[in-house]
Amino acid sequence: MRSFKRHKRLTLMSKKAPKSPKPIDMARKPRGLPDKREGLIHAEQAMIERVTAVYRCWGFEGLDTGAVEFADALGKFLPDDDRPNAGVFALQDDDEQWLSLRYDLTAPLARFAAENWQTLPKPFRRYAAGPVWRNEKPGPGRFREFLQCDADTVGAGGAHVDAEMIAMAAEAMRAAGAGDGEFTVRVNTRRLLNAVLEGIGATGETARLTILRALDKLDKFGPSGVADLLGAGRMDASGDFTKGAGLSIDGVKRVLAFAEAGRATRGETLEALGTVVGTGEEASAGLAELDAITRALEAFGAPETDIVFDPSIVRGLDYYTGPVFEAVLLKQTVDDQGGVVQIGSVGGGGRYDDLVARFTGEKVPATGFSVGISRLAAAFAMAGTIGALNGPVVVLNMDRDDPSEALRLATELRNAGIRAEAYMGSSGMRPQMKYADRRGAPAVVMAGSDELAKGVVTIKDLKVGAAKAAAISSNQEYREARPGQFEAPRADLVARVRAIVEAEDE
Amino acid sequence: MRSFKRHKRLTLMSKKAPKSPKPIDMARKPRGLPDKREGLIHAEQAMIERVTAVYRCWGFEGLDTGAVEFADALGKFLPDDDRPNAGVFALQDDDEQWLSLRYDLTAPLARFAAENWQTLPKPFRRYAAGPVWRNEKPGPGRFREFLQCDADTVGAGGAHVDAEMIAMAAEAMRAAGAGDGEFTVRVNTRRLLNAVLEGIGATGETARLTILRALDKLDKFGPSGVADLLGAGRMDASGDFTKGAGLSIDGVKRVLAFAEAGRATRGETLEALGTVVGTGEEASAGLAELDAITRALEAFGAPETDIVFDPSIVRGLDYYTGPVFEAVLLKQTVDDQGGVVQIGSVGGGGRYDDLVARFTGEKVPATGFSVGISRLAAAFAMAGTIGALNGPVVVLNMDRDDPSEALRLATELRNAGIRAEAYMGSSGMRPQMKYADRRGAPAVVMAGSDELAKGVVTIKDLKVGAAKAAAISSNQEYREARPGQFEAPRADLVARVRAIVEAEDE
Repeated sequence: MRSFKRHKRLTLMSKKAPKSPKPIDMARKPRGLPDKREGLIHAEQAMIERVTAVYRCWGFEGLDTGAVEFADALGKFLPDDDRPNAGVFALQDDDEQWLSLRYDLTAPLARFAAENWQTLPKPFRRYAAGPVWRNEKPGPGRFREFLQCDADTVGAGGAHVDAEMIAMAAEAMRAAGAGDGEFTVRVNTRRLLNAVLEGIGATGETARLTILRALDKLDKFGPSGVADLLGAGRMDASGDFTKGAGLSIDGVKRVLAFAEAGRATRGETLEALGTVVGTGEEASAGLAELDAITRALEAFGAPETDIVFDPSIVRGLDYYTGPVFEAVLLKQTVDDQGGVVQIGSVGGGGRYDDLVARFTGEKVPATGFSVGISRLAAAFAMAGTIGALNGPVVVLNMDRDDPSEALRLATELRNAGIRAEAYMGSSGMRPQMKYADRRGAPAVVMAGSDELAKGVVTIKDLKVGAAKAAAISSNQEYREARPGQFEAPRADLVARVRAIVEAEDE
Repeated sequence: MRSFKRHKRLTLMSKKAPKSPKPIDMARKPRGLPDKREGLIHAEQAMIERVTAVYRCWGFEGLDTGAVEFADALGKFLPDDDRPNAGVFALQDDDEQWLSLRYDLTAPLARFAAENWQTLPKPFRRYAAGPVWRNEKPGPGRFREFLQCDADTVGAGGAHVDAEMIAMAAEAMRAAGAGDGEFTVRVNTRRLLNAVLEGIGATGETARLTILRALDKLDKFGPSGVADLLGAGRMDASGDFTKGAGLSIDGVKRVLAFAEAGRATRGETLEALGTVVGTGEEASAGLAELDAITRALEAFGAPETDIVFDPSIVRGLDYYTGPVFEAVLLKQTVDDQGGVVQIGSVGGGGRYDDLVARFTGEKVPATGFSVGISRLAAAFAMAGTIGALNGPVVVLNMDRDDPSEALRLATELRNAGIRAEAYMGSSGMRPQMKYADRRGAPAVVMAGSDELAKGVVTIKDLKVGAAKAAAISSNQEYREARPGQFEAPRADLVARVRAIVEAEDE
């Protein structure tokens, strides 16, 4: 309903019948794109505010690149790259150029940084929050539009820059609502993975992928299942057989020893890794990287429990070149059907030194982290920590011919800072009370001709009323008792309603 | 960078050269879809928060329907309906169904209300804020993605429901930052327009449109110009001739008398209108509507100066059926080139009783209001009321081999609630100082080996420094004076920096 003052054409609702008088069954939404109601919106917004406050405090500045980009500028760095046309919502502009809805906040940042590199402060440190779109098969808890909240440092190499992301990721998780022992940020580096794979001679792309997919199953199948997947293959309970990577027994041992080198502290893990990754150039570089991250994390005062080195972390995105990390929710939650749900990863990031070079040809080191706001909010919703919000105080409309009195009372409450509305429909008393209930109103206010004549208002405390009503057995008794309901002088309206609202808020 | 734990396929950055080693010129954004930097983002967000706080206080609840809808569910109620395929960004889903990016927040609400009517509290009162997309020709201040912030009441008829929207619109404008005398909400009703057009026999669609377009030019051409457009036609200064509506002299007079019936107060305008709209059924209904709005506005305590009846208000959207209103910014602003810009309409709304019936076949009365957040923010930006935000305190990195000290100092400042970052690049002192300047840092902190040995830090107040430096004539004098720069005991770091940041904030 934006203004159209500048538009040339104007039309007026004609009095003839609308063009499609017959309703068609089109009141529906595409799958995986659900509507969000107030409780969830509020939880997600609060989460975004708290996470961006962390990013801002660490010195990052806001940037909003919008939803739509040229398809070639975004590229496609999505996990499903065996389906080249899937993953991205594409559309054609009126000049026939292909556009895409952004599928993450990183690809547009790379475009922006490349486009504006000359004039940006360097390094360029930005945060962003907003929806992204994936044209993938939706499922439970898996949407085609969801919110992310990212921070990135573009134009700075060095493990301490990654360590800053990692330390900030832990702080962001806490700001988002994850408490002590409810999450960890798991850190690995692509360099050590590469070193181990080189060490066992797994240099072909297919072998590498099979091994990495096997590693990614460590949480699910445990060491012996993964050993099968690294070797000849694994048969599951149903008899289905997954072909393995075909590694020798020694190869399987070395890969598993690497993946299981995680220890209680970052220092101990680093020591354990030193004994399993070999002594090649890539191994030394990877160990030096983790060592520098360890020292920087100490300087940041990052708690050992929040951040662990975990060599089994793989992560999916094609563009990572160094350290990779993911934030994992440890809490198990229970879904609608009572099934246990392990939410797992709710955020991730890493170093991507080649992404800006797609545009400029020159390598621009970059690292970043992203919180999956929608995923985290869904997890908290399942855990029951997202509650319904209180509704407004509802002033019933006792005079259908002239609603002025109800409007005045609602205005008086609002002017006193109390959330309130006059009932705007045309129904009688019972539906009006039902409406107030459904809105979660803490109280209703009534002022009919009787009350007006006496200079009073009737106020009903709906929470107290509901509690008292539960103890009443007969309808007649209910009508006589009018639980939670009382008269007050008109002059006391604000004070009496405020007392109810404040009690409700506690 | 969302988590991909559940994805089947994983890829790893291979060490071979990237697939497109040659940079191509694709670091660019489609026209009309600009990137937004921090100052504007902050201004728009603050505006959305304040406006939605008003909507919430009036009892509306949040709803987020997301960006993508089925094309047939949205329909197309856009002004340019002579270009049936223009206006909307359309895309095809993988099952070949056509989807659209929402072009406003009203059409998706109608879909949602129709889809969920049985289970919603009635009336359904929702607010929403977010981006909408128009596939139109972009221009200065005219974007293809912009923010709106709406409130709507669905399922309630009656002029007092419109009056609530109108009174709330004025409050929203004030919350968004428009002060006394800087805006008005102009109100009209389609019924009176219809009555006048019927009265002069202008019942054909083409004649009606020509007349309405003429009325819409009253601000621009004045009464005599509009009289020409209503009559034979108008020739502009360049000699271009616009054909008129061909009304008789009496017809022109009656339409103009109607359009110019606006008076100082709502009551006076209502009286003046009574003498010009005739006595037909539609005229009486329109007058009764405005009379009921007047009484309700009084009950809401809405100031006369904020809300006026203005019979020249037409508004473009096809779906309005009763009262229409628009919020107008009165302040003139000056653009980059020094030209005077009349921003005009920054919000609007009205009654649209037929929109939900597209889906259900049953008439569901509805009324709503939308603030054009991007437009309003652009107006305030032009007026110079949107300033740059302060940057973080920057701790310079004095030791390229081991940045730990800088990381520790920045951490100490952040732990004390001060926005701060360690410089993360690899450049020398001068570029680091330049970086701090460009970020708008209130202060820089330095602690090299000298300072560490002495147990001190060097702090530079960049604002005081810049002021003092302006009074210094030679480079040598500058180096010796080191304006704004001082040493402080390490233990005083937080207190001394806080004092600078707080002084800067004032």
